[in-house]
Amino acid sequence: MKDRRFALGFDYGTNSVRALVVDIATGEEVGTSVYNYGAGVDGVIVDPVDPNVARQDPKDYIDGLEASGRGAIEKAKANCKDFSPDQIIGIGVDTTGSTPMPVDAEGMPLGLDPQFADNPNAMAWLWKDHTSYEEAGAITAKAAKSRPQFLAKCGGAYSSEWFWSKIWHCLKVDPEVFDAAYTWVELADVIPGLLTGTSAPDKLKRGICAAGHKAMFNAEWGGYPDKEFLVSLEPGLGRIRESLPDVAYTAGERAGLLTEEWAQRLGVKPGIAVSVGAFDAHMGAVGAGVKEGTLVKIIGTSTCDVAVAGKATGLPDVPGVCGIVDGSVLPEYIGLEAGQSAVGDIFNWFVKNCVPASYGEEAKQKGMDIHQLLTEKAEKQKPGESGLLALDWNNGNRTILVDVRLSGLMLGQTLQTRPEEMYRALIEGTAYGARVIIDRLEEYGVHIEEVVNCGGIAEKNAMLMQIYADVTNRTMKISRSAQTPALGAAMFAAVAAGPKNGGHATVEAAQTAMGGLKEREFTPIPANVKVYEQLFRMYKELHDIFGTRDYSVNLHHIMKDLLDLRDAVREGKEI
Amino acid sequence: MKDRRFALGFDYGTNSVRALVVDIATGEEVGTSVYNYGAGVDGVIVDPVDPNVARQDPKDYIDGLEASGRGAIEKAKANCKDFSPDQIIGIGVDTTGSTPMPVDAEGMPLGLDPQFADNPNAMAWLWKDHTSYEEAGAITAKAAKSRPQFLAKCGGAYSSEWFWSKIWHCLKVDPEVFDAAYTWVELADVIPGLLTGTSAPDKLKRGICAAGHKAMFNAEWGGYPDKEFLVSLEPGLGRIRESLPDVAYTAGERAGLLTEEWAQRLGVKPGIAVSVGAFDAHMGAVGAGVKEGTLVKIIGTSTCDVAVAGKATGLPDVPGVCGIVDGSVLPEYIGLEAGQSAVGDIFNWFVKNCVPASYGEEAKQKGMDIHQLLTEKAEKQKPGESGLLALDWNNGNRTILVDVRLSGLMLGQTLQTRPEEMYRALIEGTAYGARVIIDRLEEYGVHIEEVVNCGGIAEKNAMLMQIYADVTNRTMKISRSAQTPALGAAMFAAVAAGPKNGGHATVEAAQTAMGGLKEREFTPIPANVKVYEQLFRMYKELHDIFGTRDYSVNLHHIMKDLLDLRDAVREGKEI
Repeated sequence: MKDRRFALGFDYGTNSVRALVVDIATGEEVGTSVYNYGAGVDGVIVDPVDPNVARQDPKDYIDGLEASGRGAIEKAKANCKDFSPDQIIGIGVDTTGSTPMPVDAEGMPLGLDPQFADNPNAMAWLWKDHTSYEEAGAITAKAAKSRPQFLAKCGGAYSSEWFWSKIWHCLKVDPEVFDAAYTWVELADVIPGLLTGTSAPDKLKRGICAAGHKAMFNAEWGGYPDKEFLVSLEPGLGRIRESLPDVAYTAGERAGLLTEEWAQRLGVKPGIAVSVGAFDAHMGAVGAGVKEGTLVKIIGTSTCDVAVAGKATGLPDVPGVCGIVDGSVLPEYIGLEAGQSAVGDIFNWFVKNCVPASYGEEAKQKGMDIHQLLTEKAEKQKPGESGLLALDWNNGNRTILVDVRLSGLMLGQTLQTRPEEMYRALIEGTAYGARVIIDRLEEYGVHIEEVVNCGGIAEKNAMLMQIYADVTNRTMKISRSAQTPALGAAMFAAVAAGPKNGGHATVEAAQTAMGGLKEREFTPIPANVKVYEQLFRMYKELHDIFGTRDYSVNLHHIMKDLLDLRDAVREGKEI
Repeated sequence: MKDRRFALGFDYGTNSVRALVVDIATGEEVGTSVYNYGAGVDGVIVDPVDPNVARQDPKDYIDGLEASGRGAIEKAKANCKDFSPDQIIGIGVDTTGSTPMPVDAEGMPLGLDPQFADNPNAMAWLWKDHTSYEEAGAITAKAAKSRPQFLAKCGGAYSSEWFWSKIWHCLKVDPEVFDAAYTWVELADVIPGLLTGTSAPDKLKRGICAAGHKAMFNAEWGGYPDKEFLVSLEPGLGRIRESLPDVAYTAGERAGLLTEEWAQRLGVKPGIAVSVGAFDAHMGAVGAGVKEGTLVKIIGTSTCDVAVAGKATGLPDVPGVCGIVDGSVLPEYIGLEAGQSAVGDIFNWFVKNCVPASYGEEAKQKGMDIHQLLTEKAEKQKPGESGLLALDWNNGNRTILVDVRLSGLMLGQTLQTRPEEMYRALIEGTAYGARVIIDRLEEYGVHIEEVVNCGGIAEKNAMLMQIYADVTNRTMKISRSAQTPALGAAMFAAVAAGPKNGGHATVEAAQTAMGGLKEREFTPIPANVKVYEQLFRMYKELHDIFGTRDYSVNLHHIMKDLLDLRDAVREGKEI
């Protein structure tokens, strides 16, 4: 077994970074380690007054790179007698995004500069930072007038979570930081740059995934948005445009080779390949086996939905789908990214804020956590039985409305409504949100035959998976790996290494060798599908009337319909 | 002080009956006692499957009459050396309603008959029993076609909580009980009948309050609805119409004189006057000092709003106001009754189902109950700051929509939303509901200058009172007595006794002598009024779009407006 080869994948999440050592031939995960960021609240620098602020300290990223990498390798040594660090032939990196940060002319993040040590604006602007919603609105408005093509590829609206909104907001609120920044770099590009000594802006290979999905990069119009457009937003942005390259790279290409310094810090061989970086959802989708007809849903605090479409199909622009980028997921396909701004976050919010003490005690007695107890109670309910309906917008709506200034809604509460009913309604709300995305993709010709789910919630909560199957009327499958983003990163590491070094020639080959599904699938239950058809219709009405400008309707029937449905379900009547 | 005279008031609530001994000259309350009903859950017989069922055992009423009456007299003896039971010159009774029960030809409630001991349909049908919503709808539809005048006086829709809906539902679901009943009598009439030996249907003096507000009794059309109309609903109802008298009496008139038996059971003199009964809200309003220009709000689990209008003003029918009945509150005025189906019930539901364990612990440490803790936290919020908006329909809407098949709604939740924000939003929701009622009365010429509030919530929760003042832009006053319904019953007892027996000549004279207000008033805070104007506008939009058929609008702005308002409030901007 001396000829085994391994890849090292890094997955930068919202609160921690995970490293994973994977066998390139089998996908066996032989060692993993997680480093929790130290700054702020669970690694997120927040603002007590402005709930829109979410920043991260770049130092956490670098400390976590070394600690998690070494940790995973130590685990691999302990777990697998065939393993030696010298057998690691490549490194891949995925990160949250859009998480850009200002850097100096050498590519050093300004957040590391003692001068800016306490300034959140010099830190990384985490994906869920929503301070830039006004700038997002202005970019959308300006592009709608003068560059409609920019919007067409990002779902019709530019988001406050994205690259240019954040840079512009920094220019407005903190010119000192803005002026000190030579350019801005996505976390997904910062880490490969660091590992390969290519941080300097003129050397850095930026990934197409971040550039295309978040920074309006597209070969059709020559890369990043033209300077004239940016200057029309605010003249200062012109300088940032000049700092950006004209090309971007697909993951699987080499960002460079591992430096001596980082080889020592991680305890691996120097000179091994490091892949160009991409976002966690994209690499996660690859790790989960995304291909034509297969939607991958990565269900975590929020959800990312990733699909690919063949280039030959002549894919039209899909309104409200966050990103349509050539090569952003699989090099030979058009990558599509959609998502829900909050899923697990909603359930966690509910458990933390809305569940009475008696449930905590019952959970304790049963040796469960509160999610498990609520799930146990909620799975006894029939669809429609509670008379409740919830929108899943507690953190805005990413797809298909692309609007952070939407909020939650629950409807149908009575004096008998119980916590587990509200919990289930919130889960159902996220399922309806998931269905809206699938329906939109289908409507524009991206056929979705099956859904592969990843993430702890999908693995642990069978009720949720069944609800998703029933609401979408599609089979729900679950990725074999619990760490699909890190696994995907390792697949790209294997591709970056290439066959000559014992890696893979293509991403598809890496998927075939290293990926897989769990045996348990969730197939739609026809009786539930019928009820959820009705509930979804009502959801869609609320969705359209609260979420779009172009829809007027009287909602007098909604509560009554819900009660009729509830009664019919309770009485076992035909729906 | 040997010439002091006292009246004994009985107040039959949802879970208990209270007796109160009051000085007729000063309103001093010298003794009170409460008897908790024994049947069902807190005295309410419920159905584990059908949440609409709410019944009561007549035995509880009779046991409670003796126990609470004797208890109050014992307390009066202990508290007041001038008091002797012989100084009690009259008895008044108020009850929940519409709470009708089937009785036999002697006037005995069927629920006391061993044959029906376990049959909830033979019991009293408590006001909040909603099993009859289909019948209510059918009565409304039929009357709309053939007897529009019936609906005009009860707000445009007949309720499932009312007399004829309940009787008809019994006819449909339990013909055996229906056939065994000679007639149906409101609890407000059952008790005076019992005390005076006039239970037999041909002797019973039924009160105008219950008859007019709940049974469509009106002198304009000769009393109760005509037999032809009732038969057109279902022939069996014709027999019930024949069992009913053609007259009804205002409270303050004598139902009769106290029997020897009940004089003994209570320990008072036989032959004293017993007033015709009325509903708790109406007698409570009198106890609180209702007069032209003064709205009385009795805030409990639900809310009753009572006003009077001079007969000379030519009051038009007021759409959506539950009842407009000549003499139902004050003998010389038109009585108007409105209400909210759930107020305290919503707060209690929230505390029981939606507040996390940590709040329970904090409340314990501070020696508070959870309502107090939530209030302490919520009163730190500025209006509009939470971005939340709630409808107050968790138990349907009594006024002005008259629709039990409406349900709750909360909108604007984010991942940062805290329990005290939702609690405050629910309180605000009830304040908006209160304002809708006032606006409707004003719109139809019933001017409301001031509001007098009664009930534990009004007395205990200054934040709620301030919110009500700010939302309605009116001064909120609070009744001096904590027991205004029982006090009002005692006022009517004094009037029924009359001046010759040391009582009062008119209800107004009794109010002047026996009533009063607390010193603390709540005046509107102009800055809050401005914010609540905006929030109320949004509430009204949701109210109209979810609650009426005739209203179509796009609601895209609602969540955004709430967030804009929230941000402006947080930043201290001009609203």
